[in-house]
Amino acid sequence: MDSLSVKTVPLVITGFGHVGRAFVSLLREKTEDLERRYGLSLRILAVARTEGCFYSGDALEVRQISRAGDLWTTGNPSWQEGLKIADVLERHGQGGCLVECTASDLETGEPGLSYITAAFHAGWHAVAASKGALVVGLPALKAVAAENGVFLKFSGATAAALPTLDVGLFSLAGARIEGIQGILNGTSNYILTRMGEGLDYDEALKEAQDKGIAEPDPAHDVGGWDSACKILLITNACLDAAYVLKDVKVSGITGMAVDFVQSARREGRSVKLLATAAPGRQGGRWSLDVRPSLVDSSHPLVHVNGTEKGITFLTDSMGSVTVTGGRSNPRGAAAALLKDIINIYRPPF
Amino acid sequence: MDSLSVKTVPLVITGFGHVGRAFVSLLREKTEDLERRYGLSLRILAVARTEGCFYSGDALEVRQISRAGDLWTTGNPSWQEGLKIADVLERHGQGGCLVECTASDLETGEPGLSYITAAFHAGWHAVAASKGALVVGLPALKAVAAENGVFLKFSGATAAALPTLDVGLFSLAGARIEGIQGILNGTSNYILTRMGEGLDYDEALKEAQDKGIAEPDPAHDVGGWDSACKILLITNACLDAAYVLKDVKVSGITGMAVDFVQSARREGRSVKLLATAAPGRQGGRWSLDVRPSLVDSSHPLVHVNGTEKGITFLTDSMGSVTVTGGRSNPRGAAAALLKDIINIYRPPF
Repeated sequence: MDSLSVKTVPLVITGFGHVGRAFVSLLREKTEDLERRYGLSLRILAVARTEGCFYSGDALEVRQISRAGDLWTTGNPSWQEGLKIADVLERHGQGGCLVECTASDLETGEPGLSYITAAFHAGWHAVAASKGALVVGLPALKAVAAENGVFLKFSGATAAALPTLDVGLFSLAGARIEGIQGILNGTSNYILTRMGEGLDYDEALKEAQDKGIAEPDPAHDVGGWDSACKILLITNACLDAAYVLKDVKVSGITGMAVDFVQSARREGRSVKLLATAAPGRQGGRWSLDVRPSLVDSSHPLVHVNGTEKGITFLTDSMGSVTVTGGRSNPRGAAAALLKDIINIYRPPF
Repeated sequence: MDSLSVKTVPLVITGFGHVGRAFVSLLREKTEDLERRYGLSLRILAVARTEGCFYSGDALEVRQISRAGDLWTTGNPSWQEGLKIADVLERHGQGGCLVECTASDLETGEPGLSYITAAFHAGWHAVAASKGALVVGLPALKAVAAENGVFLKFSGATAAALPTLDVGLFSLAGARIEGIQGILNGTSNYILTRMGEGLDYDEALKEAQDKGIAEPDPAHDVGGWDSACKILLITNACLDAAYVLKDVKVSGITGMAVDFVQSARREGRSVKLLATAAPGRQGGRWSLDVRPSLVDSSHPLVHVNGTEKGITFLTDSMGSVTVTGGRSNPRGAAAALLKDIINIYRPPF
C-alpha cells in the first residue's frame, strides 16, 4: 500500500490491566504490518485511569506508562493527575477510537459506560473488551453512536479471539439466525473437562486456579454469569434486540457432582455449560439461558474441551455454522480489540 | 431502517444452472428482509447466457426467465438473442453487481473471466460462485477491480456457506495467518466417512451418486481438484498471493483401499482429504497440497463427517480458529453470493 495513503488513528485506552497491556504490546509488534496491510498508523494518545491520564499531547510509548510492568504515575512526566478523558477527546477532535479495557461493573456499567458515552459525544468510535457498559446499556449506546455517526464494536467482550459477533453479523449476512448455542466460558469448560477425566469439582477448580485459568474468586465464571453476559451481548447484537441480563436464566456448575459428569460419560455424552438463545413461538420473545447440559456425540460443540470455546449459529439459508478455538488469554482479547479497530478504519475490500 | 435510505442495486446473473436459480429463489424470499435489515433493494436486470440475455430494461421476475424450472427462450418477450452482457452493463451505468454462476473452465477461466472483466470495466462489482476465472486469473482480476474502484468477492466459490474468506480477511484482521488446513470437498468427505463405516470405495461412491451428492463424473471432486482450487483461492485471497493451480500438489481419494481407512479407524484415527497451505522456511514460498491424511482425535477437523466441510486457520495472535458446517447445496452457494453482495453495499456497521 502506498505510504501516502496511510491513515493516522489516535487511540485512548481506558483501563490498563492485563488486557490493556497486552493490547499495547500487540500494537508495538504489529506497527509495520498494520501500515502495510491496512494503511493504518495507530497511535496511543492517552491511557486513562480514574485519577487522571497518561497524556503528553503526542503518541505515548509503553515506557512512558509502565515501568517493569507496573503503572508508574509518581514523577512520570506524562502523568496528569485529575485530567479527564473527555477533555483529552475534545482536544483532539473527532475520528479517534476509544479502547475500553476497564474492570467494569455489571450493575452500573461504570466506569466504561461514561467513557464510551464521552467518546461518542466527542465523535470517537469505541471498541470494548469489558462487558459492563454493554450489558447495562447496549441499545442506548448504539443509539448514541448512531446519532454521532460513530461505531461501537465489542468482539473483545464476546469471547475474545473466538469470532462470534463478526460471524453473526458479517459471515452470515442475509441469513436469518434461528438459534445460537455456545460454550462461552473457558474456566467452566476446563473444570467440566477435568471432571470428565475423573477429578471432583473442588480438585478441578483448584487445579484451574493453580494454573491461572480460574480467578481466586471464580463465582462469575462457574456461576454462569460470564456466559450469560456473552450470550446476551451476542443475541442483542445479532438480532438487534434489547434483552437485559435478568432475561437470561442462569444456572452454573458450582459444586457439581462428579457422578453426574461421570455417568454422562459412560453413556457417551458430555456435560457442557451451554449458553443458548432460542426463538419464542410465533415470533415472540427469545428465551436465553445458561445451564449445564448433556450433549451427545453428534452435537457440534461436544469436542470443545479444556479452556477452548465455541459457538454454533443455526440459520435458514446457510445451515448450521460452528466456530471453535481462538486464544482466550489477554493477548487474544487484545487481538480482538485490534481486529475491531482495523475493521472500523480499513479501506473497503 | 428508513425507507428513504433504501439503495437500489441492479444485478446481472451470468449462468442459470442450479446455483443461479437458487440465487433467484433466495432473493425473492429475502426481498423485504434485505430492505429492512440492510437498506438494499436488489433487482435482477438481466440473466445472461452464451447466446443472448433475458433483459427487458427493467427488473426481471423469475417467471420471465424460467417456466417450470427450465430456461425458456423461444417466444419469451424478455429474451434477446445475441445481446451481449457488456452492452447491458454499459447501458445502465456503473454501480451494479455481476453474479457469476457459469460452469467455468479451469484452463481458460471462460466464460466467467470475460464476464467479470466486462463488469469491472463498466464500473460494476462482481461476486462469483464459479471458480474458473478466479483460479486462472485472480491477481489480474483484483488489479482490474482496483483500477476501476470496484470489488470482487467469491465466498460462493470457496466452500459456499462455510465462511472461509471472510473469516480469514475480516474475523482474523490483524492476525498473521501461519497455516490453513481444510476439508473443503463434501463429496470426498462423504465417501471417506462411509468407508470408515465399512463400505468399499465403489460402494461409497455409488451411494453418493445415488443420493445426488456426487456428480455422474466425480473426477473433479474425488481427484482432489475441487479442494485444490479452493485452497488456492483461499490462500491467494488471505495472503494477497499469486499462486497458481500447478503450485498445488494434488492427490485425491480415487480408488482408495477400504483397508487403509479401516486400519486407521482401529488406531483411533480418521482418513480425511486435507487441503493444506503451510509457510515455507524463512519467509519463502508457501507449500500447497491436497492429499488423503491420517488425522488423530485431537485434530480440529477430525469430527467433520459426511458432506460437511471445515477449515482451520493458525494465527500468531488469535491462536487456532476452526469453522465447520454451512450448507453446501445450491441454496448454500446462493446464500454465500447474497452475503457478499450485502457486504459490498450495506452501510458500515
